[in-house]
Formats: sequence, C-alpha cells, structure tokens
Amino acid sequence: MKIISYSIRDDEMPALKAWKSQHPDVEVQVESENLTPETASKAQGADAAVTFQQAPYTKEVLEELQKLGVNKLSLRNVGIDNIDLPVAEKLGFQITNVPVYSPNAIAEHAAWLMGRLLRRVPEYDAKIKQRDLRWAPEIGREMRMQTVGVIGTGHIGRVLINILQGFGAKVVCYDIFQNPEIKAADLYVDSLDELYQQSDIITLHVPSVKENIHMINADSIAKMKDSVIIINVARGDLIDTDDLLKALDNGQVAAAGLDVYEKEVGIFNKDWAGQPVPDANLEDLFRRQNVIVTPHTAFYTETAVENMVQKSFDASLQLIKGETPDTLVKY
Amino acid sequence: MKIISYSIRDDEMPALKAWKSQHPDVEVQVESENLTPETASKAQGADAAVTFQQAPYTKEVLEELQKLGVNKLSLRNVGIDNIDLPVAEKLGFQITNVPVYSPNAIAEHAAWLMGRLLRRVPEYDAKIKQRDLRWAPEIGREMRMQTVGVIGTGHIGRVLINILQGFGAKVVCYDIFQNPEIKAADLYVDSLDELYQQSDIITLHVPSVKENIHMINADSIAKMKDSVIIINVARGDLIDTDDLLKALDNGQVAAAGLDVYEKEVGIFNKDWAGQPVPDANLEDLFRRQNVIVTPHTAFYTETAVENMVQKSFDASLQLIKGETPDTLVKY
Repeated sequence: MKIISYSIRDDEMPALKAWKSQHPDVEVQVESENLTPETASKAQGADAAVTFQQAPYTKEVLEELQKLGVNKLSLRNVGIDNIDLPVAEKLGFQITNVPVYSPNAIAEHAAWLMGRLLRRVPEYDAKIKQRDLRWAPEIGREMRMQTVGVIGTGHIGRVLINILQGFGAKVVCYDIFQNPEIKAADLYVDSLDELYQQSDIITLHVPSVKENIHMINADSIAKMKDSVIIINVARGDLIDTDDLLKALDNGQVAAAGLDVYEKEVGIFNKDWAGQPVPDANLEDLFRRQNVIVTPHTAFYTETAVENMVQKSFDASLQLIKGETPDTLVKY
Repeated sequence: MKIISYSIRDDEMPALKAWKSQHPDVEVQVESENLTPETASKAQGADAAVTFQQAPYTKEVLEELQKLGVNKLSLRNVGIDNIDLPVAEKLGFQITNVPVYSPNAIAEHAAWLMGRLLRRVPEYDAKIKQRDLRWAPEIGREMRMQTVGVIGTGHIGRVLINILQGFGAKVVCYDIFQNPEIKAADLYVDSLDELYQQSDIITLHVPSVKENIHMINADSIAKMKDSVIIINVARGDLIDTDDLLKALDNGQVAAAGLDVYEKEVGIFNKDWAGQPVPDANLEDLFRRQNVIVTPHTAFYTETAVENMVQKSFDASLQLIKGETPDTLVKY
C-alpha cells in the first residue's frame, strides 16, 4: 500500500513520522510541492493521495491522477471549494476531508485576540519598543466585566463559551441551530439584535453561508453598543470590511481582532517582504493600533496539525482498504 | 470634611467623580503632584490625605503633614514600604491601604501572557510588521494541552486557576497555606519539586517574603521540564534574573512573561525615550522574542483603578469620622 502526500510542511513531519511508525505496512511518499498538473505524475504507483488545500484541483489535475489510477484523495484540511467537484464525481473520485481538527485552536485564538485588545497590547508594544514604560493612559479592561456575544454555538463557539466563563465573563449566544446544553444553561438570546444590544465583545463562529455574508455591516454595527470589540476567526466574508473601517474611524467599533479577511486568498500565507500588501483595506487594517490581523493562523497549533495529519492519513488508508471513512465527502 | 488627594491621574478621574457625587458633603481637593516635602503644605485645611505610592514618605513629609494637623493617610495601593513607619507611628498617623483591588486584573494578565507566548505572538508580530504573512514555522501550542503549575493559591492564584480550567488546562498547585477548596479539588502537589517536574508553564503568585526571594534560580530551573514557560506577575525578586537569562540562552526555559523585575524601581513607569533602559539584564529581556516584559501594568485596569479610588476614599472618610477601616495598617 502506498500513499503519496503533497504540500507537506516541516511542522507536519513529527505527526507524519508518528503515523508511519504506527503503519509500517504503508509506504508514504512525502512531497513538499503542491498537487498541480505538473506534480500529479509523481503519484505514479500510489494507491491514494493526501493533500492540503493550497492550489485549485482542476479538471487537468484530476484527469492526470485518474490516468495513473489514483482516484482516492484525502485532504488534511476542511475546505473542498478548490476542487472541481463535478469533474471529480464524473471521474469516480472518493474524497475525504478533516472537518474537525481542533476547535480549541480556533477558540483559544479568539480569546487571545480579545485579551490583547482589552489590555491594549498593540499600543503598549509600540510604547515599550520606544522604551516608554509609562502605564497611562492605556488603561485595560477585564474580561470578567465584559458581556461577550457568541454568534454560532458549534464546536468552536462552545469551547469558547467555556473559556469565557472561566474568566467570569457574561456570555450571551445566538444560533439558528440551538445546542441543548447551551439552551439548558439559558445562554441564548432570542435574536441577533438582542445580542448586538447587550454585548461589549461580539465574536463570530458561523459558516459563510449565503445568509451570513456581510452580516457585520453598517446596519448591524448601528445596533451594537458604542465601542464594541468585534472578533472574527471564522470566515472573512462575514464582515463588510468597508463598513467596519468606517465604524473604526468614527469609534462605533473600538477595536477588532481578525484572523480572516474577505479577500485573503492569494495574500495570506505569503511573504510580501516589507511591502504593503496588495489590498488597500487590508493594509489599512494592519496599520491600526486598535486592530489585530493574524493571517489565518488560528488553526495553526501542534495539536491541530497532528490531528489533520492523523485523520487524513487514517481516512486515506480506509479508502485503500475499501472502507468508508466518516469524513467521505458526499457529492 | 475635606480630603486632599495626591498623584491623581486622568484615568482615576471617572472613579473619583463617581465617589464625589456619592459624597456631596465631602470636599475633595485633587492634586496631580506627588506628596513630597514641597507639596505637603497643600494639605492645609484638609482632614485627611489620599495618596498613591510614588515617592518616599519620609520623616520630613510626615512632620510637615503633622504640623498641618493631617495625620490620616489613605493609600490607593497595597504597598506601604515607601513610608517611614516608625516615624509615622510616633507622630500618631493612621494609615490605610487597599490590599485587594482586583485579583482578576493580575490573574487575567498572567493568562494573556501565557497565550501570547504559547501562540508565539512576538515572533508573528515581527513577521507581520514586515508583511511576512506565512504561518510556518511559528506553530503554536494550545492551553488545553498544558499542565500549569500555580505557585501560590491566594486571591490571584485562585482566580487564575478558574481561568486555566476554563481553557481545559491541567492545573497543579503549591502553597504552604492550603486553601480548602483547592485541597478538596485535589489540585495540590506535595512539594515544589513535584510541581517543577510536572509543569509545562509555571506561574508565580506568592509574596516576596525572605524564603521566596530568588526561588526561581539555576537549581529550581534544573528541576523543571525542558522548554518550560515561566510567568511572573507577582514580585520581581522571586526570580534570579541572571539565572533566568542563562536558562533562556540554553533553552532550559523556552519563554518568559514578566510583569515585574527585581530592579524595576526607578525604571518602570518612566519614559526612556528610545534609549536602552539603564539596566543591562532588563534591556536584554526586552530584546528577546521569547520574552514579554510588561512594565508592572498587570494591575492597570478600569475595574482595579475604580476599586483603588473607591476603597481609599471610603477608608479616608471612615478615618475622619473616627471609625476603624478594615484596611487600617497595624504598626
């Protein structure tokens, strides 16, 4: 049995080595390059491929793999929007992803962003760099004094609720799909408007389905408390960035912590080598002391990466053995 | 009734105004200057003084106040080591302090330092400043995967334990004075050595009494896990800085988050205007990407400042009325 793996990073190697030592009967070919029309030929002789969403998996790539008899594709990530799915279905591809790798990685990142903004860390960092060690006037706020509105109570939202309650914060939640435990704890408010009215911090943990796109916009911001803090570690297009920038300018929004950006594809996870990034709004966000932008790194923890590697290779092996992984993508 | 208040900062004004509006019968004289031999004369006509630990309250200062009939002194902070206590006692001074203003301010700051180090924020900040938006190789760690050793389970340590447990971290504690709730939850280990052996992160919440001075030194560090993270938001002299620097150099200690420094007096809360600070070890700490130094700002939150103002003015008023505040300092 042989699995070819593409886009393997150094930080994935410890988990990959651990998986290999647990599966001595499986040959694993490790490639750092992305799966492209050019590199597809390396899959010659493999029974299945493990990949990471970095490049479009076009008709050309899929046909090339198909010619080599490789039609089992296991992604180490959740997103499958880079795959030409109609073609994949026609060619008989079996595809798996890793829908849940570590809700804690994301939830903790959201909490850390809140902390850095509440304690005005970017402003202190700039002062301390100049060896201005005075406290005032950057007085901080305590998490326990905040009401935090959690929009979306799936895996990630629920982990975050536990974290926030550990701090003693007041939590209010909204989700169209109510979780029984959160409901029993009486944390749901009846509407987004109610959540907007009550919250000092608003944090997004919903998918970017059509109804949610630009849910944070001038209208919703107008319903929020003055000087609200907005956190987005979910999907960039949940926020209308133009409207957010205006609200940051006029103080309606006091601060924002963003791990995602609506036009991040092609910009994040690249080195712009000291130049402004090629997106005026994003560059504007980077330059503000009351905004923290992290380049989609919330997921990037040792535990998450280990889970992504293990779960994808486990699924790949199941496909080779003719089993049906839980994570098989339905067409 | 008239209270004179020294060293009042802008960030204290909202709390001070709130107190004044609740006590219309009390005249409050507000001075931004410190209480010194020169400014003591401003206390003429006051019944009591409220101050903040910034300058030494020498024999000269105390005698000057005494001449004006002011021998009621309420500090807005906890420390009283700047007061010449034998002289104060002889002159019949009644002194109050604010021993507990917000354990959460300190405990939350400790948690935020942990998060910034676990997620390698200083390294990412430097990359992002250069618009290098690549994730690798600064992979983060999750709090839930850490064993955190909490040394000292007083007010602050106990708040921090709740925070850490909200993240799902494993907590082990040590204190010579065992708290019944922490004991019932079976969180205590039998010795500091045991805590050192087990902990991925060690955080200090003990006073700087004689036995604790330089408790973190080459010997104790040798007993810790390799790549431990050390957090100190308590007192600078709990750590032997020379030994910490050596351990940071050789990797025994992976990272440190420090809100206090053993020689911070005269350096913190001042503006060094782009120059290195006048202490080689502290400057060395500031320059490391795996060390975060904050200039004793853990306490500096709106809630803490509000409590410091309210409690000190309440105590001052009690002294004027001949009552005995809970926070009366015993000679």
